Amino acid sequence: MSPVPDPATGDIGSKAPVPDPATGDIGSKGSRAHLADTAPTLEFGRPRRTTVQSDIQDTIQHPGNVRINVQGAFIVDEEQPGTPQSEDYEHDPQDIRLPNHTSVVSHVAVDIGGSLAKLVYLSREPGDDAIGGRLNFFKFETDRIDACIEFMRKLQADQKQDNGSKPEDLCIMATGGGAFKYYDKITEALGVEVIREDEMECLIIGLDFFINEIPNEVFTYSEDSPMAFMSHPSDPPNIYPYLLVNIGSGVSMIKVSGPRQFERIGGTSLGGGTLWGLLSLLTGARSFDDMLRLAENGDNSTVDLLVGDIYGQSYNKIGLKSTHIASSFGKVYKMKRAAERQAEDGCNGDFKRREEAEHVEGSSELPHGPGSFRPEDISRSLLYAVSNNIGQIAHLHAEKHGLPRIYFGGSFIGGHSQTMNTLSYAIRFWSKDTRQAYFLRHEGYLGSVGAFLKRQPRNWGRRESFVGLAKAV
Amino acid sequence: MSPVPDPATGDIGSKAPVPDPATGDIGSKGSRAHLADTAPTLEFGRPRRTTVQSDIQDTIQHPGNVRINVQGAFIVDEEQPGTPQSEDYEHDPQDIRLPNHTSVVSHVAVDIGGSLAKLVYLSREPGDDAIGGRLNFFKFETDRIDACIEFMRKLQADQKQDNGSKPEDLCIMATGGGAFKYYDKITEALGVEVIREDEMECLIIGLDFFINEIPNEVFTYSEDSPMAFMSHPSDPPNIYPYLLVNIGSGVSMIKVSGPRQFERIGGTSLGGGTLWGLLSLLTGARSFDDMLRLAENGDNSTVDLLVGDIYGQSYNKIGLKSTHIASSFGKVYKMKRAAERQAEDGCNGDFKRREEAEHVEGSSELPHGPGSFRPEDISRSLLYAVSNNIGQIAHLHAEKHGLPRIYFGGSFIGGHSQTMNTLSYAIRFWSKDTRQAYFLRHEGYLGSVGAFLKRQPRNWGRRESFVGLAKAV
Repeated sequence: MSPVPDPATGDIGSKAPVPDPATGDIGSKGSRAHLADTAPTLEFGRPRRTTVQSDIQDTIQHPGNVRINVQGAFIVDEEQPGTPQSEDYEHDPQDIRLPNHTSVVSHVAVDIGGSLAKLVYLSREPGDDAIGGRLNFFKFETDRIDACIEFMRKLQADQKQDNGSKPEDLCIMATGGGAFKYYDKITEALGVEVIREDEMECLIIGLDFFINEIPNEVFTYSEDSPMAFMSHPSDPPNIYPYLLVNIGSGVSMIKVSGPRQFERIGGTSLGGGTLWGLLSLLTGARSFDDMLRLAENGDNSTVDLLVGDIYGQSYNKIGLKSTHIASSFGKVYKMKRAAERQAEDGCNGDFKRREEAEHVEGSSELPHGPGSFRPEDISRSLLYAVSNNIGQIAHLHAEKHGLPRIYFGGSFIGGHSQTMNTLSYAIRFWSKDTRQAYFLRHEGYLGSVGAFLKRQPRNWGRRESFVGLAKAV
Repeated sequence: MSPVPDPATGDIGSKAPVPDPATGDIGSKGSRAHLADTAPTLEFGRPRRTTVQSDIQDTIQHPGNVRINVQGAFIVDEEQPGTPQSEDYEHDPQDIRLPNHTSVVSHVAVDIGGSLAKLVYLSREPGDDAIGGRLNFFKFETDRIDACIEFMRKLQADQKQDNGSKPEDLCIMATGGGAFKYYDKITEALGVEVIREDEMECLIIGLDFFINEIPNEVFTYSEDSPMAFMSHPSDPPNIYPYLLVNIGSGVSMIKVSGPRQFERIGGTSLGGGTLWGLLSLLTGARSFDDMLRLAENGDNSTVDLLVGDIYGQSYNKIGLKSTHIASSFGKVYKMKRAAERQAEDGCNGDFKRREEAEHVEGSSELPHGPGSFRPEDISRSLLYAVSNNIGQIAHLHAEKHGLPRIYFGGSFIGGHSQTMNTLSYAIRFWSKDTRQAYFLRHEGYLGSVGAFLKRQPRNWGRRESFVGLAKAV
């Protein structure tokens, strides 16, 4: 199965259901025939077995891992009836359905980052006797961690009601910096055990899961072919080594050499938090989605200094086109200076003297705002600057360590076509087309899925004690 | 002569005269005893000769290069009497004195970049019969190129008055993008030949000159030892290979393997123009110096998200200290969101509904300015972000190409201690102390000095036709 662009949507950002290009089905088992001869019970670090065994048997024989039957797993785009909605969180409608899963997993995983807390849990399919389950994905603002804790309390209560289990039977797998910062708070609020997991390790466990187990999850992006799904890895999979670039508030770059073999080789503080922070100051946009919508309608050439602005032409000798960005925001200071000079000329130097008297009176009360610059153009320029920069650094690290594939994860990307296009372009530009960027539809949930999967919960094996976790919260 | 920290100033930013640490003299010949047995007539690509010859003989034997007698050259910090002052330009008081230079060089070199035009010319020492000359350094805003042209016209007029030469005897050596963009304008305005030179080549010719010929020009920077001059290269010099990182509006990274052997291996659009542009929008500061002064008094931890903010502690497993910047400006969006939530709560949801109605109304008229953030803190955060980023990319390129030394040039640095400290720190951090950053006191003039030196002017050899260029403009 070679990579096939999605014929229906043309844009991952639309979040519409994505039919399988081979069959037109939404997630039918038939479209994943390449999995038919395997029983892809998830088991990291071991070859996938070829016979189906009962989950409970697996658990007894191979303790230490959560066993999820991912046979026939697929992404569901339509909203599940009864899915909780609230302004306290964002529910990602792209559930992952596990039609053949039967066992009960009574834990919740949360990856608490600098800006966002990402939560994953498994629910039973609706209907009392139905087999199968769904992985559900939720985002909270880290600063509203109480809303996230409240959500987990509700999961706990529902579990009790449905299964008669004790509240402490719920197990919280936590990763990210907030797993440490909010450890006491969560433990005390819920009266449960919180198992903390290393952030980087969870990221790569989650990514390995998505690459190996979930069809139509990983894709490449280009303007011509906005969403070309990666073919499923061969069996046994040969996906290593690779570079994971995780873009949240900041950026981490992790070299992955094999299952659970990884090293953080770099990073940059210029990440999502930088874009969100600067754009909230400069454009007045109140959400990341608003900022991205602004960027879509912007023209960066009004604020960026292009090679053509400096040379009046291309700089052919070193292959820089006239449209190449020489300096991000490089026109702003010049234009502001010109406007000030005009003002000075207009008031016979009074302005100039006042400036000297005030000296370094920089303060937000002065009329120095973005005024003459369009928020759309500012947004696009900064999106380009941050994405290009991450792309260049990622390329340099990938080259240094000989990593052929670069996966981009993290909530910064948010399925936004312009961001992915810029990252893809940057990787192609800097690597002279020798490397490619890969993206994921659940890019923000690598860490929480990794934490979810990393080990069996404390109460694993008592599956008969209750029939399932929260049908609908 | 090992690197010695400057004991007098402790801060290159002060621009005060810097005495030679060995003798206490300001630029006396005695302090450059290591040059005594050489006659360092400048000659790129050939070993320096050990006997003094007349400049005219040199010129006849080795045409194609400007011959400047740099024996005993030193940096003069005090203002020369009669130095022109104007608000049209900035005169760098750090002239380079050439006490043994006799020949006439009737040309002016200008490096016209995206934001600044940097001009260099040679003047005779005051006094009719005095031998010796001075290299003079001036900066103009590129957007005010007319002021720069006017300055050159004055040089032309003074030359005519002093020497009876024809206006067209002045030769303009021009480099940078503006050499192309403003070629017709300069040619027409002055009625002279304008010789255009490649920007990158000029940068490295200029840098080679400063490294090889000017004592107390190149230095390292650290908090403990703010200005440690590099020992003069041995003779013949062995300064290659090196990386030049030139930071103007944008950033170019140039690998230099030998005299005039170079390749642009990278760059980033996040340079001086980005810092100036964003800070002029965010802080109201009207000049780069004001921005740097703000940064000196700032605390980035009020706007940057530190590792400690996310983890509540250090992330020891991967060696990230709690004070490490995880996300530049990573606190801003969070704090603005919190303030908005408070406002929403305060007006029973009206605010919220208004927000939904307005949708993406980002515009500078909305009250979304830096408000609760101090301009000082914003300045420091952005200075750190840009400098750290350049440092990381420079390190990765230097490592990739096996370049042991990294020189930082360009007007962005501006002799500012905090900028140099951040760049130095970044190089040490990323290279694990295996590489060091080097700075120059004339960091902004590499390109114009390179253009000045690159070739003989058209009217070279007619030195008897006039006695000198502009004593004082």
